[in-house]
Amino acid sequence: MSASTFKVKFLPHEREITVEDGENLIHAAMDAGVHINASCGGEGVCGKCRVLIEEGDVAEGISEKLSKEDIKKGYRLACKSLVKSDLVVRIPVESAIDASVLNLQSTPRRTAHIEQMDLGDLKEKGLFTPPVEKKYLELPEPTAQDNLPDVSRLVNYLKLSHDEHRMYVTPSVIQKIPDIIREKDFKITATLARPVHEGGRTRIINVQAGDTTDRNFAIAMDIGTTTIYGQILDLKSGEVLAENGDFNGQISFGEDVISRIVYAEKAGGLKKLQEVVIKTINTVIDSIIKQAGIDSDEISTITLAGNTTMTQLMLSVNPKYIRRSPYVPASTIYPPIRAFDLGMNLKEHVTALIYPQVSSYVGGDIVAGVMGSGMYRTEELTLYMDIGTNAEIVIGNKDWLACAACSAGPAFEGGGIKLGMRAAKGAIEDFSLDPVTLEPMLVTIGKVRPKGICGSGLITMVATMFEMGVIDNRGKFNRDLDTERIREVDGIYEYVIAWKDETQIDREVVITEIDIENLIRAKGAVYSGCMTLLSEVGMSIQDVERIILAGGFGSYVDLEKAMIIGLLPEIDADKVTFVGNGSLMGAKMSSLTNRIRRDVVEVTKKMTNFELSETPSYMDNYMAALFLPHTDIDMFPNLKARLDARRDMLQ
Amino acid sequence: MSASTFKVKFLPHEREITVEDGENLIHAAMDAGVHINASCGGEGVCGKCRVLIEEGDVAEGISEKLSKEDIKKGYRLACKSLVKSDLVVRIPVESAIDASVLNLQSTPRRTAHIEQMDLGDLKEKGLFTPPVEKKYLELPEPTAQDNLPDVSRLVNYLKLSHDEHRMYVTPSVIQKIPDIIREKDFKITATLARPVHEGGRTRIINVQAGDTTDRNFAIAMDIGTTTIYGQILDLKSGEVLAENGDFNGQISFGEDVISRIVYAEKAGGLKKLQEVVIKTINTVIDSIIKQAGIDSDEISTITLAGNTTMTQLMLSVNPKYIRRSPYVPASTIYPPIRAFDLGMNLKEHVTALIYPQVSSYVGGDIVAGVMGSGMYRTEELTLYMDIGTNAEIVIGNKDWLACAACSAGPAFEGGGIKLGMRAAKGAIEDFSLDPVTLEPMLVTIGKVRPKGICGSGLITMVATMFEMGVIDNRGKFNRDLDTERIREVDGIYEYVIAWKDETQIDREVVITEIDIENLIRAKGAVYSGCMTLLSEVGMSIQDVERIILAGGFGSYVDLEKAMIIGLLPEIDADKVTFVGNGSLMGAKMSSLTNRIRRDVVEVTKKMTNFELSETPSYMDNYMAALFLPHTDIDMFPNLKARLDARRDMLQ
Repeated sequence: MSASTFKVKFLPHEREITVEDGENLIHAAMDAGVHINASCGGEGVCGKCRVLIEEGDVAEGISEKLSKEDIKKGYRLACKSLVKSDLVVRIPVESAIDASVLNLQSTPRRTAHIEQMDLGDLKEKGLFTPPVEKKYLELPEPTAQDNLPDVSRLVNYLKLSHDEHRMYVTPSVIQKIPDIIREKDFKITATLARPVHEGGRTRIINVQAGDTTDRNFAIAMDIGTTTIYGQILDLKSGEVLAENGDFNGQISFGEDVISRIVYAEKAGGLKKLQEVVIKTINTVIDSIIKQAGIDSDEISTITLAGNTTMTQLMLSVNPKYIRRSPYVPASTIYPPIRAFDLGMNLKEHVTALIYPQVSSYVGGDIVAGVMGSGMYRTEELTLYMDIGTNAEIVIGNKDWLACAACSAGPAFEGGGIKLGMRAAKGAIEDFSLDPVTLEPMLVTIGKVRPKGICGSGLITMVATMFEMGVIDNRGKFNRDLDTERIREVDGIYEYVIAWKDETQIDREVVITEIDIENLIRAKGAVYSGCMTLLSEVGMSIQDVERIILAGGFGSYVDLEKAMIIGLLPEIDADKVTFVGNGSLMGAKMSSLTNRIRRDVVEVTKKMTNFELSETPSYMDNYMAALFLPHTDIDMFPNLKARLDARRDMLQ
Repeated sequence: MSASTFKVKFLPHEREITVEDGENLIHAAMDAGVHINASCGGEGVCGKCRVLIEEGDVAEGISEKLSKEDIKKGYRLACKSLVKSDLVVRIPVESAIDASVLNLQSTPRRTAHIEQMDLGDLKEKGLFTPPVEKKYLELPEPTAQDNLPDVSRLVNYLKLSHDEHRMYVTPSVIQKIPDIIREKDFKITATLARPVHEGGRTRIINVQAGDTTDRNFAIAMDIGTTTIYGQILDLKSGEVLAENGDFNGQISFGEDVISRIVYAEKAGGLKKLQEVVIKTINTVIDSIIKQAGIDSDEISTITLAGNTTMTQLMLSVNPKYIRRSPYVPASTIYPPIRAFDLGMNLKEHVTALIYPQVSSYVGGDIVAGVMGSGMYRTEELTLYMDIGTNAEIVIGNKDWLACAACSAGPAFEGGGIKLGMRAAKGAIEDFSLDPVTLEPMLVTIGKVRPKGICGSGLITMVATMFEMGVIDNRGKFNRDLDTERIREVDGIYEYVIAWKDETQIDREVVITEIDIENLIRAKGAVYSGCMTLLSEVGMSIQDVERIILAGGFGSYVDLEKAMIIGLLPEIDADKVTFVGNGSLMGAKMSSLTNRIRRDVVEVTKKMTNFELSETPSYMDNYMAALFLPHTDIDMFPNLKARLDARRDMLQ
């Protein structure tokens, strides 16, 4: 999978970056923190991103916006060029630029590196002990002198040959065994489900004729409010054989958990929502079973993780009291349940293991992330965040864990923003400003003319504008700047990111002070959540040694920018990791190692939940966080130093 | 319930018997072992049973067969007279009878006394600990500072207030709790199901609003091949609130277990038989719930006992291999199963507890009898027998138990007997012979003219004829006797019990040598089963200290007669007890005391099953038992003494 990589050096900035074969050159510049004027989002129509390839080769990059002479000299449009070798690229600086200004360019873009569970490591540590195992037996045939019942024959020989003790036999095994045991002359494979607790009993959940030990599969599933993802895991190798997702059919009954709960309170609503989510689950199950080319009978177990509301709805448990103070869930721990009883397209022997919850708003998806990321086993003080409309925060290490949920509002997903949009084609996802002219550089998803701004783009935009002095620490535009991009419309200040003729929406793409205020509120809610949790346990945000980001948002956000706006505490970007779908990852881990299933009960007991609305210091922390990056800039020493340097330079 | 009793003295025999108020006088004579000629079965038409009431009063007894003068003198028809005071009754002896001959009368009739579980005793010993208990709690309402999940609130306070630990909460409780806990302001009753094993977990199986601790009921049920009986038990008082039975609907698919198994092997047969037995179970459940005047939600548990085939059919487990050598059942122990999953008309929280089996032909009904009768806790060497078409035998005490099943054939139920019939109206159930004239005395069920012979009547008949020398120890009629009742028809000898004009079937009621042979085979199979079991454990039949009879047959059989024909070993009749429906009794016991549920697993492990067909000594024992009472008369010393005395007297 390791594609070849190339080094790209930008002049006169002398910034170098390593990119993958075929990377778009304007992306490379953006990631290197090098500004190139560009207003068309990468579509190649504005022609402003003219660069000179001094060494090396690029593919494409030729456009009618370039003269033949320019092309001959080596000029290309950066937004159309793909890196195909090591390069030296010179950015034409139109104005007679002071070399020192180059230092005012953005810091290189940093996103979190992906951390995934290491199967090899698990195997090495002896932790690759799936909760469901298969054992093959060649049993002696019964005779008049030895006419043990079929079940006793199986149980006795599991004792003798495999040292298995204290077993519980499920009713469905008793129903199947008389015919199955004789199908291949008393050669039989038993599927054993391990107990969570040391003292518990192993359950014999299935029997199959002959030797089927090579065919033992599990499903891991994340039941999200919006999407449901499933994986088929090979319990012999630990590998993922198939993966697929689908929109949670409950979306038709409300986008967020609160509207789902409201629907569930209507007559027949709970039943409907349960059926609908099971329908989506079954669609995913069917597709991944087909994709993996296995038989439904070969699935031994399914592990599901979801937030508290999704979990209660899936299990037909009335979620009414989740949304009413004092926010009481029905339960946080669920016993193993037959998947069949829940309506899942799985055989009767399959037990559904449901991730436990901590509280009404810190659910199984977060617990799964804590387990899957291993943060509960480390010494380092770790901050785990799953940021969306609701942000869940876990802080702690192997000794203690504290958690809380806060409502960030929809800003991170582009909601409540004048031209906000989801991360889709035409959304501005990257942005920089010329440090002198303050002219913008835009890159959109799909390299088309801009339509709007997505969450990660918004963060980059606000961070850049703040660092460049376009907005102040209260999020207000600098009215003294000499640019027509800042203007007042109906009493509200805004900044024009793309003029009407540069967009595909027949009007300007702008960012308003209200947009910025919404973003500040969102990041303030999250940051103050972290601060409150820490102060409740007598620590401060400077003690955070590691950050783990989960969820779609975490994979796109520019870490430096998130620290500039004060969404994340300032920390070495190398110490920020991204786990992707933490919920799915935790479900997968539990499917592969019984150890995790044992640990999770202890972990949920250890996780102290704080209801932020009931924690007096939260409101103070929130008010203090409604600044860029924070009312106390000393919490962000690197940023403070850069801002100081910039001020010194510009004076 | 104790009706008043009266003493009846018969002259010239000087035999006295105590009977209940209103007892029929011919029955009283029969039970006292006093012969009165009577051939009409008690209908009063033959007029032969004329007796003189010398002291005391009888009701009725007057008939046109008696002259006015006789009536005035105090003569009555015994078969029509009801005992209403202490009596002295003289039997007119037609022939000039030698007083010594009176000693040749039958021994008084002895049936087993009923032994039932003593609830007071259980309570005294602290054993009245039903497996399902209810606990009432007044929980604090949740607040912002105390917003525990509903389940945790319940579990924590069960710990605090009731010292309950390590609890498992069922999915249905989680589904119900949010609404139930709030219905009566956090006043709630939890239903706790106790584990079978000491180390196991208590399960919270139900929650109800308010205090419902007074309403906790169980069902005990016997799943018989022919009939299904159920009881509602009050788990607070231990009392039986309702009881009812119905024919097992599977009868339409075959009368005995083998024909049921054959049907189950047909396509769809197993499913059909499962549905049909559940339908009967539901009929019984519905009727006893109604009869007890309780609500279905108040039933906490159901315990079922049945033979191995009935159990497998009820649980949809293919019974095919039960009837094929080497006779392997699917399992002998069944886990608790949700009654709801089996199709029973009971709420989701109700767990069905299934009595374990020992082998294909020693099933849960017998294990239940062993548990219910307490034989597994006694020092005495006890013989437990459930005699029917199949006879199950358990021998042992608190230290060891051995069991076997033998096919007795249908003779005990009147099958394979020329004029055999079930114990219904018109069946001869009692019989004696005039020791001198060898004229018979008949009493039929319903006191009507005879139609045929039922199992217990057959035993009494053969025993009496043998003791009176009408048949020899090989079951052959004494051809030397001067009576027209013994005759040869189509080469087969028979004895005319009732002449054509005395019956209601327009022909004679007879007993043939083939009938006797069938009875001898049946009793031989049972007796040799006992002998084989004993000899396999190094003991002999003389060591048997106690006999427990179970089932319908056991309640009617005349013990002395059963010992004369060698069906039962000779033992003091006081040491024979009758437990009635042992299966139902065991199911009831398990419903009331968890101790029994714990013991039963150990007991089934301890019960050594012998396949008689595979035990070499069985055939020898069987051949030796094909005599009256046995080839070795020394095993029956009392009988031997009586036979010797009779011979001496007649010589």
